[in-house]
Amino acid sequence: MEGFSFSTDVRVRFAETDAQGIAHHASFVVWLEVARVAYLAHHAGGYQAIRERGLEALTTEVCLRYHRAAAFDETLRVWARCSDVRGARFTYEYRIERDGELVADGYTKHAVVEHETYRPTRVPDWLVDAIARAEASSA
Amino acid sequence: MEGFSFSTDVRVRFAETDAQGIAHHASFVVWLEVARVAYLAHHAGGYQAIRERGLEALTTEVCLRYHRAAAFDETLRVWARCSDVRGARFTYEYRIERDGELVADGYTKHAVVEHETYRPTRVPDWLVDAIARAEASSA
Amino acid sequence: MEGFSFSTDVRVRFAETDAQGIAHHASFVVWLEVARVAYLAHHAGGYQAIRERGLEALTTEVCLRYHRAAAFDETLRVWARCSDVRGARFTYEYRIERDGELVADGYTKHAVVEHETYRPTRVPDWLVDAIARAEASSA
Amino acid sequence: MEGFSFSTDVRVRFAETDAQGIAHHASFVVWLEVARVAYLAHHAGGYQAIRERGLEALTTEVCLRYHRAAAFDETLRVWARCSDVRGARFTYEYRIERDGELVADGYTKHAVVEHETYRPTRVPDWLVDAIARAEASSA
Repeated sequence: MEGFSFSTDVRVRFAETDAQGIAHHASFVVWLEVARVAYLAHHAGGYQAIRERGLEALTTEVCLRYHRAAAFDETLRVWARCSDVRGARFTYEYRIERDGELVADGYTKHAVVEHETYRPTRVPDWLVDAIARAEASSA
Repeated sequence: MEGFSFSTDVRVRFAETDAQGIAHHASFVVWLEVARVAYLAHHAGGYQAIRERGLEALTTEVCLRYHRAAAFDETLRVWARCSDVRGARFTYEYRIERDGELVADGYTKHAVVEHETYRPTRVPDWLVDAIARAEASSA
Repeated sequence: MEGFSFSTDVRVRFAETDAQGIAHHASFVVWLEVARVAYLAHHAGGYQAIRERGLEALTTEVCLRYHRAAAFDETLRVWARCSDVRGARFTYEYRIERDGELVADGYTKHAVVEHETYRPTRVPDWLVDAIARAEASSA
Repeated sequence: MEGFSFSTDVRVRFAETDAQGIAHHASFVVWLEVARVAYLAHHAGGYQAIRERGLEALTTEVCLRYHRAAAFDETLRVWARCSDVRGARFTYEYRIERDGELVADGYTKHAVVEHETYRPTRVPDWLVDAIARAEASSA
């Protein structure tokens, strides 16, 4: 997938389908999170590493366009890249595909806050650097 | 809420929270659906009425901005309006508030398809009319 | 419902259905929790009151028998009673019905723990008393 | 795991946690389903194969005991076996462990029905045989 260097696979669970016979649209939002967690595990020591430093990454925006339905038991590849880190904020972009075919795409925005106070705080340098290295490798 | 004539309340379930101690961002996507279902029940005989005519309304886009966190057991008011009906497509806009304070806002887009074939089909006239009447009442 | 003095209603959400066209069986587990929360709100100042005292009620067991399928948009009545409080532990029993017809029944077991340490602690007297009063009224 | 020949791993998603900071108890019910689906994929051509023959496997009972909490991002091993097939009904037993430590155990019961009519129907011979072979290998 052009411009993306990281992906993780999810398999549509039966619990994630709905009475239309396809994956419910809210399930995709969870899969984006699964991809972010896998991205951080791969590139930056994991989301748990961030939480253990007393930080949380809040989700401030979710936008998803659904191009094709996904069915039970299908394997979807979720491509993710961190596209913009500035101050306390960062953005992820995604493409979800099945056998190379675009199923959905979108982005999420996030803000880093201190766990105790929920006050915004700069994305830590080690995380900025880890993301920069990760994305440089896909340029 | 200016420009909105319909709302429904949801109460944050414990199952809808996450380890950040707040409602998970995917829960909001479900609440938008709850509001659409309630809107259709109020204005147009219910979503089931649509399904019984062999139609489905697919979700083709979801965009949500989160302004404040929502906590377990809080009551949120989900304002919804149908803002654009043309051909097979329609749009909903939303504002989610708690005690008059904006918690999240966004929109969803939908396409009407035939249940059997998943082919797009025009939004039926009776539904267009019901929505037009509903939204006229809020102008 | 014989032996039950408390109930709360839930309406089957579209997101709670699955590709079998009915409510997914895990959705029922969430509805039991909704009923417990409503029970505590009605009888004992709310689950939040328990949490604010530094306690958590962990779920240690869930058993559910499904007698009939539940469909999208149906209203289900969840009857709940607290049947057994001893030491750190208590039990809830449930009957879920639709128009007086049994849809599911079951029970859950719980243990009260201190939030900080996760160590079991006796159900507080004020809660034991509130439950005793609640259940006496249904005898 | 004694008596079990099949397992599948799940990783606790952030969306599966709750404000207690641990995996929500309803998430486990979904993981049992994930294990059943993986079991059938491994031993009997997949659950989709059953559905494509016009059959559904309804869940008629779920019982789960929770022995330890599970945290975000932990990998859990879900052991599953099909323990009883008779007529239209079958049972699964489970043990969920983390690094060899028991986290939860339980069982689910199921009934095979015809998709169109929801009438119970005998578990098909090919599926009975596949399960028998699968379980013989673990004896």
